[in-house]
Amino acid sequence: MSGWVVIAGLGPGSPDLVTPEVAAALAGATDLVGYAPYLSRVAPQPGQIRHETDNREELDRARHALTLAASGKRVVVVSSGDPGVFAMASAVFEAVEAGPPDWRGLDIRVLPGVTAMLAAAARAGAPLGHDFCAINLSDNLKPWAVIENRLSLAVRADFAIALYNPRSKARPDGFGRALALLRERCEPGRVMIFARAVSTPDESLRIVTLAEAMPGMADMRTVVLIGSAATRIIPRAGMPFVYTPRSVPE
Amino acid sequence: MSGWVVIAGLGPGSPDLVTPEVAAALAGATDLVGYAPYLSRVAPQPGQIRHETDNREELDRARHALTLAASGKRVVVVSSGDPGVFAMASAVFEAVEAGPPDWRGLDIRVLPGVTAMLAAAARAGAPLGHDFCAINLSDNLKPWAVIENRLSLAVRADFAIALYNPRSKARPDGFGRALALLRERCEPGRVMIFARAVSTPDESLRIVTLAEAMPGMADMRTVVLIGSAATRIIPRAGMPFVYTPRSVPE
Repeated sequence: MSGWVVIAGLGPGSPDLVTPEVAAALAGATDLVGYAPYLSRVAPQPGQIRHETDNREELDRARHALTLAASGKRVVVVSSGDPGVFAMASAVFEAVEAGPPDWRGLDIRVLPGVTAMLAAAARAGAPLGHDFCAINLSDNLKPWAVIENRLSLAVRADFAIALYNPRSKARPDGFGRALALLRERCEPGRVMIFARAVSTPDESLRIVTLAEAMPGMADMRTVVLIGSAATRIIPRAGMPFVYTPRSVPE
Repeated sequence: MSGWVVIAGLGPGSPDLVTPEVAAALAGATDLVGYAPYLSRVAPQPGQIRHETDNREELDRARHALTLAASGKRVVVVSSGDPGVFAMASAVFEAVEAGPPDWRGLDIRVLPGVTAMLAAAARAGAPLGHDFCAINLSDNLKPWAVIENRLSLAVRADFAIALYNPRSKARPDGFGRALALLRERCEPGRVMIFARAVSTPDESLRIVTLAEAMPGMADMRTVVLIGSAATRIIPRAGMPFVYTPRSVPE
């Protein structure tokens, strides 16, 4: 059995943010598996088979990739960003754990990538420059109460916060509830960044205060960064710089 | 004035994890500024000037880079990992804010990279597959009480946790105190990963329980990952897979 599964992070969108390691894996694959918009980022290669799936079918997609590898195929499962951050890697290991014992013997590797919050932060300056956390705002797979509890504790810890999947057509209301929670617990001038589709032609970046933030500023292609209490804005001509200092005073 | 400053993330070590965007910036620079071990990762280029500094001199290094750019140089400040995560980007913006007003008009860009926790997580499986946080364990620039408070709240929130800079010769004791705090608050079987120098020839990975963890397992080249309560181990021949499921049950 010489098949393998690589779960590869394509980064936030631009080919300039795809690591050489991921590019080499893509070039060596017999089969690519993934959500269609992510597969469309990969240049076609003669003889390589593409298995396009819908966004909600992560476990099916994972099982399919493992089945192909068990039959000797060299499979890349493509993820946006980093595969280990709210993406395909966990789904693959869930499938491995629940699957036939021989799947545990497969050559399975995760290749890291630039996750959305890092690309978003880089565009704004260094808002994640001190301790921070990442929270998936989707309640498809967890109760909303868990999200609210984590968000409250993150504010108490004074982490900068990255919110993934803040809002979608199927979940129009959660982000508004998150904003309401933040407004109860943070000062109105708290810095927020709405970073949409960073490094793609659709990129947009909006820097606002918590008081100015509105649910409609986020969609499913947006990552939202919330500064800590220490996060600062440097005004200048054009887009300001946003950064969180490295120091916390005594 | 045609100078610029790029703060570039070289990733965790391997050239295969340097993005094409960063490689292009390095190729176009007149001057490179950075900590000597990071500069040594960049292939020399004729005519390019290297300004090597010690690890503790981030602000001096930042000011030097900005001064060079203000005089028309094309400067890359090199960081390991991602420059926005406990690295050089915040230092540069601190220097900009405190510096002469014309520095705000400079062309300053941050180029993201693969930060250590993502490379470490990828090697182990998907331990950061659900909500997580990143905490810098160094108390050089913040009181230890802030670190303990954040760690406690992170455990209460049931985040997976990445600890950067867990231990160094100058700070031999903090990580042991962090372990003691974790032992008070988490079950003994909590999964921990000690990932050292991932993607370099010195790479090592150790997967243990909290009960087995010892301070000496970490040094200044180690990132420590602590699973959430839900993090699972998949036993297999050789190194097990570690992952955190995407779901939180009701």
